[in-house]
Amino acid sequence: MDYFPPALERLVEQFAKLPGVGRKSAQRLAFYLLNQPDQAAQEFADAIVQAKAGISCCPVCQNLTQGEGPCPICASPRRDRGLICVVADPKDVVAMERAREYQGVYHVLHGVISPMSHVGPDDLRVTQLTQRLADGQVREVIMATNPDTEGETTAMYLSRLVKPFGVKVTRLAYGIPVGSHLEFADEATLTRALEGRREM
Amino acid sequence: MDYFPPALERLVEQFAKLPGVGRKSAQRLAFYLLNQPDQAAQEFADAIVQAKAGISCCPVCQNLTQGEGPCPICASPRRDRGLICVVADPKDVVAMERAREYQGVYHVLHGVISPMSHVGPDDLRVTQLTQRLADGQVREVIMATNPDTEGETTAMYLSRLVKPFGVKVTRLAYGIPVGSHLEFADEATLTRALEGRREM
Repeated sequence: MDYFPPALERLVEQFAKLPGVGRKSAQRLAFYLLNQPDQAAQEFADAIVQAKAGISCCPVCQNLTQGEGPCPICASPRRDRGLICVVADPKDVVAMERAREYQGVYHVLHGVISPMSHVGPDDLRVTQLTQRLADGQVREVIMATNPDTEGETTAMYLSRLVKPFGVKVTRLAYGIPVGSHLEFADEATLTRALEGRREM
Repeated sequence: MDYFPPALERLVEQFAKLPGVGRKSAQRLAFYLLNQPDQAAQEFADAIVQAKAGISCCPVCQNLTQGEGPCPICASPRRDRGLICVVADPKDVVAMERAREYQGVYHVLHGVISPMSHVGPDDLRVTQLTQRLADGQVREVIMATNPDTEGETTAMYLSRLVKPFGVKVTRLAYGIPVGSHLEFADEATLTRALEGRREM
């Protein structure tokens, strides 16, 4: 016998489906929503439906965008279309933009090559990238996938695919993070930081 | 400048409002939903709306119930209406029912007296409890609030309020949890377990 009312049980189940949310947390979240004003719960429900309905991928860079047509970054006249930064995920675009340094455009792969998870190049937005290079307007492609095994593999694979188009292919620099302590840096990072040392 | 599309940003904000969900987790949850089929997202939204609309408090025991009228426990002819178990929260009813031992009915306070959080008896379903005692049908009230300061305070306050109705007032037993190890029991629990020892 179930002791929660069925409608509450269904809400708990929905929350429990979310990644990293167990049954106990799901109960807590469901009870929280139940104790909110009707309007707050309605806003939550609306936000889900509207996000699903209103968001699609930019036909140029494959980043998430609202409505039809290119995303604001691809549409901006101030962006350098000769420079493409390849990232795995829309969140990485947000991280890059936060640095306020990059003036080029992006290409979002929506994942990385991962044989362990059965993700190959065909599951990523790879052909959309090579199509963008076909007209010869692009000078440089920056590989900005994560510095882990899968990110490296993906960057390596793409660089081989992209070089025949006659573009420069670069990779984000490795090194010690700004504001960190040497003593906490791992060996691999320190080795890379040494290798990449620059004259002052 | 915000780099997420507005509809996605709103969904992230909604998730971030939930207790224990920070901005990073909220992003992760929003992206997860965005990657689900339309139907799954719609089911989530529906579950929120239906839980809010369909769930109310049982007019007798104040536990959460679906639809109008008394909850299934209050409506059950097999339950002993002379025995009321007072709990702080609907989740505590679920915990009690899971033990499959209790045959009486419940009263859900929806909180505990907590001067620190500005919660007094008037914020709880206390008058609804005394109203249930008025007709003299109730023999015993079991105080099953949590064994912490606030739960104790609440049990103490209610017991003084309830005794004038001529009902027996009891409190759940304290002691070492079944299946635990003595070495891990705290002093307060061990003291209570000693005080409450029974002849074998």
